[in-house]
This record gives sequence, C-alpha cells and structure tokens, in this order.
Amino acid sequence: MDHKGRLKKLHTAFESNSLDGLLVTHLPNIRYLCGFTGTSGVLAIPETGSVFFTDGRYSEQARAEVKGSRVVIARKPPLAAAAEWLAENKNKGKKPRRLGIESEHLTVAARSQLASLLRHNFRLRETRGLVERARMIKDTDEIALLQAAAVLGASLFDRALEVIRPGVTENEVAAEMEYAARRSGAEQMSFPTIIAAGKRSALPHGRASAAAIPSRGFVVCDFGVILTGYCSDRTRTVHVGRPTDQARGMYEAVREAQAAAIETVKAGASVGEVDQAARKILKKRGLERHFTHSTGHGVGLEIHEPPRIASGQTEVLCPGMVITIEPGVYVAGTGGVRIEDVVVVTERGCEILAPTSKELITI
Amino acid sequence: MDHKGRLKKLHTAFESNSLDGLLVTHLPNIRYLCGFTGTSGVLAIPETGSVFFTDGRYSEQARAEVKGSRVVIARKPPLAAAAEWLAENKNKGKKPRRLGIESEHLTVAARSQLASLLRHNFRLRETRGLVERARMIKDTDEIALLQAAAVLGASLFDRALEVIRPGVTENEVAAEMEYAARRSGAEQMSFPTIIAAGKRSALPHGRASAAAIPSRGFVVCDFGVILTGYCSDRTRTVHVGRPTDQARGMYEAVREAQAAAIETVKAGASVGEVDQAARKILKKRGLERHFTHSTGHGVGLEIHEPPRIASGQTEVLCPGMVITIEPGVYVAGTGGVRIEDVVVVTERGCEILAPTSKELITI
Repeated sequence: MDHKGRLKKLHTAFESNSLDGLLVTHLPNIRYLCGFTGTSGVLAIPETGSVFFTDGRYSEQARAEVKGSRVVIARKPPLAAAAEWLAENKNKGKKPRRLGIESEHLTVAARSQLASLLRHNFRLRETRGLVERARMIKDTDEIALLQAAAVLGASLFDRALEVIRPGVTENEVAAEMEYAARRSGAEQMSFPTIIAAGKRSALPHGRASAAAIPSRGFVVCDFGVILTGYCSDRTRTVHVGRPTDQARGMYEAVREAQAAAIETVKAGASVGEVDQAARKILKKRGLERHFTHSTGHGVGLEIHEPPRIASGQTEVLCPGMVITIEPGVYVAGTGGVRIEDVVVVTERGCEILAPTSKELITI
Repeated sequence: MDHKGRLKKLHTAFESNSLDGLLVTHLPNIRYLCGFTGTSGVLAIPETGSVFFTDGRYSEQARAEVKGSRVVIARKPPLAAAAEWLAENKNKGKKPRRLGIESEHLTVAARSQLASLLRHNFRLRETRGLVERARMIKDTDEIALLQAAAVLGASLFDRALEVIRPGVTENEVAAEMEYAARRSGAEQMSFPTIIAAGKRSALPHGRASAAAIPSRGFVVCDFGVILTGYCSDRTRTVHVGRPTDQARGMYEAVREAQAAAIETVKAGASVGEVDQAARKILKKRGLERHFTHSTGHGVGLEIHEPPRIASGQTEVLCPGMVITIEPGVYVAGTGGVRIEDVVVVTERGCEILAPTSKELITI
C-alpha cells in the first residue's frame, strides 16, 4: 500500500481546504493513511510529515504496522497526546493555525477536549469526508484485496445452499457460513449475517435469529467477510418450496432491477441515475413502494463508505470506485427479495466481483 | 425489561441536569430505554413521554420491539425527523427549551445539523453518560442475561482446549470457538476473538491471526459472545509445552493479582482501589511495568461500559454493577499472560459469573 503517496495527496489538499493541518481520528482513515489496524490511535498531520499516536497496548503492533508516519507511544490517551504535541510544535509567533477535524466522526465531547488542549494556538475547522473522498477511488492493490474478499465471500453461499432446509434455524445457517469464512481465513464477518426466512424476509435487516426456516417462502442471505482489512458484501435470495407466481414475479422484478442498475454503472454516470434505473423497473412492475432503501453504497475498508447510490444523490462515478448494487422488495406479512453484488466502476461500464448466476434457486 | 421505569427515572434526572428534554442517539442507550435493536434510530424524550424515530427499513422491527415509546417511521434520516418534530412540538411563546445531547456519542457534524434544524427553539446542552450512569447498575433481568452470556462464553474455552496444539493457527482456534458460540445460540461475538500465541501473547490486543501456535509458549485466549443483547468477556491463558520457571512465575503473579483485585470488589470500594490491589501484587513480583492497561471495565449491552477500573479513577462500586477484572503482564519478545472474569458487585463482595479453575493448564 502506498501510504506515503496517500499522505502526500492529502497534504496537497490542505490549501484548497484552507487547512494548516489535519487530525485524523476515524480508525479506517488512519489505517488507510498509515497502515495501523488497532483500535486506539490518532494521526496528526501538520504542514509537513505526520505523527501517529497510540497507547502502550499497541506499542509492538504500531511499530510493526505503521508506514510513512512517525510513531509515538503515549502515556495518556492518544487524542490528548496528539493535541499537546501539536500545541507544543506550533511555530511560535505566527497567527493561529487552522487544524481540520473530521466532523462526521469526532464527538462533541472530544472536540471540546481538543479545543481546550490546543488553546489559542489552533482554530478548529470542521472537515467532511476529506480522507473518505480519496478512499472512494480504490487503487490496484485495494481492488485486488476487494476481489479476494469477494471470492471468499461468494463461496459462503455454496455452504448456505447445503444447509438451508425447512426446520433448520436461521442461526444455524449463519453459523455454518461464518465457520466456513473463518476456516478460509476471513478475519471476521463485515457485518452481522442476515438470514431472513419466510415472513422475516420482509425485514430488510433481518439478522439471523432462532427462527426455523418454514417449509415455503423466500430466504434472504446477506453476508460478507473482512479479508486483509477489506470487506465483501453480497446478497442472494433463494426460495424454499415451490414458489407461487407472485413470488416468482417478485424475484424476477428484483433481478431485472439489479441488472438494469448494473447496466447503468460506468464512469461519468451519476449515482442517482444508477438508483433510478433500478427504481424504474420496479415501478413498471408495481413494486416501487416496496423498495424501501437505497440501491447501494461504496465498500472498502468499511462495509458502508461513500458514495451512497441513492435517489437524489449527484456524485459522479469514476473508474476505481467500488460499490454495491442491491435493490430489494419487501412485502410485510409475505416476504422479501434482495440481490446484491459488488462492482468496480470502469471507463466503459463495470466489473462484477466474483460474478455468479442469479437465476432463482428453489430448495 | 422495565423500559417504562427506565424512562421515568431518566425524566426524574432532567431537573438536576437542567434539561427540558434529551435526544438519545447512542444505539445501546436507545435499546436500553425502548428495546429497539436495529442500527438506525433516535429517541426524543421531551418533558413528558418519548418518541422513537427510525426509517422505513425498520418499520416492522420497530413496531415489534419498541416498548413504552411512540414509534414514528420517518421518510428522512431519524435525526432530522426527530429535530423537526421537536421544533414543531415546542410550546409556543415559552423561552428556548434546554435539549440535552449525548456529547460523547453525537458527532460534531450531527450537532451542527441539529442546531440548524432546531433553530432558536432549543439550546443544546452537552450531557455526559446520563443514560450510561443508569446502565451501570444492572437490574435482576439484566444480571440473568449477563449470567447466561457468561455461561455460554465460558463453554467456548473447553472447545479451545480441544483445538490448541502446536502447528494449529490462531485463526483455526478462533474459528472453532466462534462456530461453537453460534451453534449454542450466540448472536455474535462481543469483540474480535483474541488468540495470541507464543511471542504474540505479548500483544495485549493480539487478534487471532494466520500465525501457527509454536511448540512452546503462552496462548492468551480473550473471547466473548453476545446473547440476547448482553456481552460476555473472559480471558484464559494456557501454556503449550513445559513452562519455564519464569513463565510459571509470570502466570502465578497474574493469577494472584486477579484474585487480589476480585477480593477487593464490594459495594463501597472505589474502582481505583480495585486497580491498585492488582498492581500492588505485580509490583511485589517486579512485573508492574509490564501491566500496561487498566484492570477492568463495566460490561452489559456494550463490551466496554463505565465504570473504568483504572488507576486514579474514583467511581464507587454499587451492588448490581457488572465489571471485568483482567490484569495482565506482557514481556515483549517473550510472551504474556492475562486472566479475566466478569463479576457482579454485591453488598459484601462480588459474585464471579461462570467461575472456573484458573490453575495453569499446560498442553
């Protein structure tokens, strides 16, 4: 990973954002910029260079992982240590420096503490998505890792198909998939596995529960792994028992909506257009009001990253963006369907990571 | 769960905190107060009553789970919906109302958005740990759930003992434990499983990795489950191969330190005293400087909750508090030992949840 290049690019953005420095507190941003994978740290980026602060628990790990930044093992919490270091290292006599904070991540309490420690040496400036904006465009190394995560993630569905049967609990299906993930080297799941069967499939976020799979109905499986820090995200919906015509129609509508959205993805298209492409198909099928969430989101070091692929959003797709396309239809009391893939945006279209058939599977 | 009683207690605390209302945005606090287990929602608590805002994805789930609060399914993000509702429902003509925000959880960006939506109808007041303070004292229902989680969590160590052998990877051990957890009904792990073998055992937060267990050395296993929303947390350290006298000494020092700290726990003792009890033993053994973290933390709906059992902390223990006691010693290049239990504070002492032997196990 080109940590130095990333830091350099960020430094270049200081002027246009009226910043003399940036305090990075969001852990995925810290990992992106310096490689640290632990859960306690702050990256201080003054006008030149960068210093990573962590505590004693991470002294060995920080020294092994951090690239391109100096490491300081602090006796006090990293935020306080970074603030004191900045206050001390400010060039004397100059007017107050402008220090960017990550306003979407820093808490109100942490901001207050920071302001009091920095005193009059710095003016805090609220930044939004400065590092996230860089992270939206994945480089070749990152796409290779996302590809590897997607392949591992996709293999879990094969395991699910072996296990899903009437009477088996949703938790049991999730257990087998998660076990297979770990055995294959996944660090952890990228979010709590969703196995939602029968009427529960109408819950867009129906985490696996103790409920047994009924003898007839949809089973929505939404699952992902983290491999070398990068997330996979995929949804497949199967039907247990013979589907009714209505159920088959729902499934085909979602499949067509997903294909239409994927068809729209290419450099230069806006995320709103991609969302509309899915919505348009579902409208034609009279199902639009049952599609109650957005069409997708970016994925990388975090399971949900910018951009949001949603109605009214204007972000323009660029080569190297990695996003999910996941329309769904949910009918309360009946059931739901969702189909999701991760795609990499290219100049002329997109590439689906670990593509597989999406024909309706009945069990 | 007595959600109404919890809300009532919170309302009672408004006056002493100079509040006319509170906006609860931290999800575990929302779950505690109204039962909602999803990942998107805001609980608005004006002078009387309370209203829970969520989005369309959670309409069914919110209606099924939320007790004691009215549910609103909003078309816009819950924070914006709650703010607009508050602004509209403010009694006209009165002076601005004082609305508490959870300053340790609300982000700087969300605070700005909130302030602009509420306009001059409310003054925002930064609160700290208002709901967390109530959550520190667990009621009987909660202690029963924590007990159940602890028993399930403890059983995973039996599985670890069957698997830990030289040459087996840390990830494989974690995979077997997590699989056993799921099969036993755990919703998920309460944190990424730590299996740190050989020299890696000197990393206090050494998540399971692809490293193989060496033929000789400590293996630190720190693991927990979430069951019905409540977390377990436990650490056991075993030794592979015959331990040296130095290794045995390290283990016994930590075991003695943990016992001394547990001995100190009772209603009326301060958390600082408990921390000191562990540190004193390790000092006597010349190992104090290798004990690089605090002695423990509260545990409940979150894996880390107040109080912190740390040096210099003055919180006084009360019956019903549930805390971890987990001293450790880490010698870089050699290895580490940590032993951890969860205990419930009682009038006269404490009760260890799911107690088991802590004699050194060699494999």
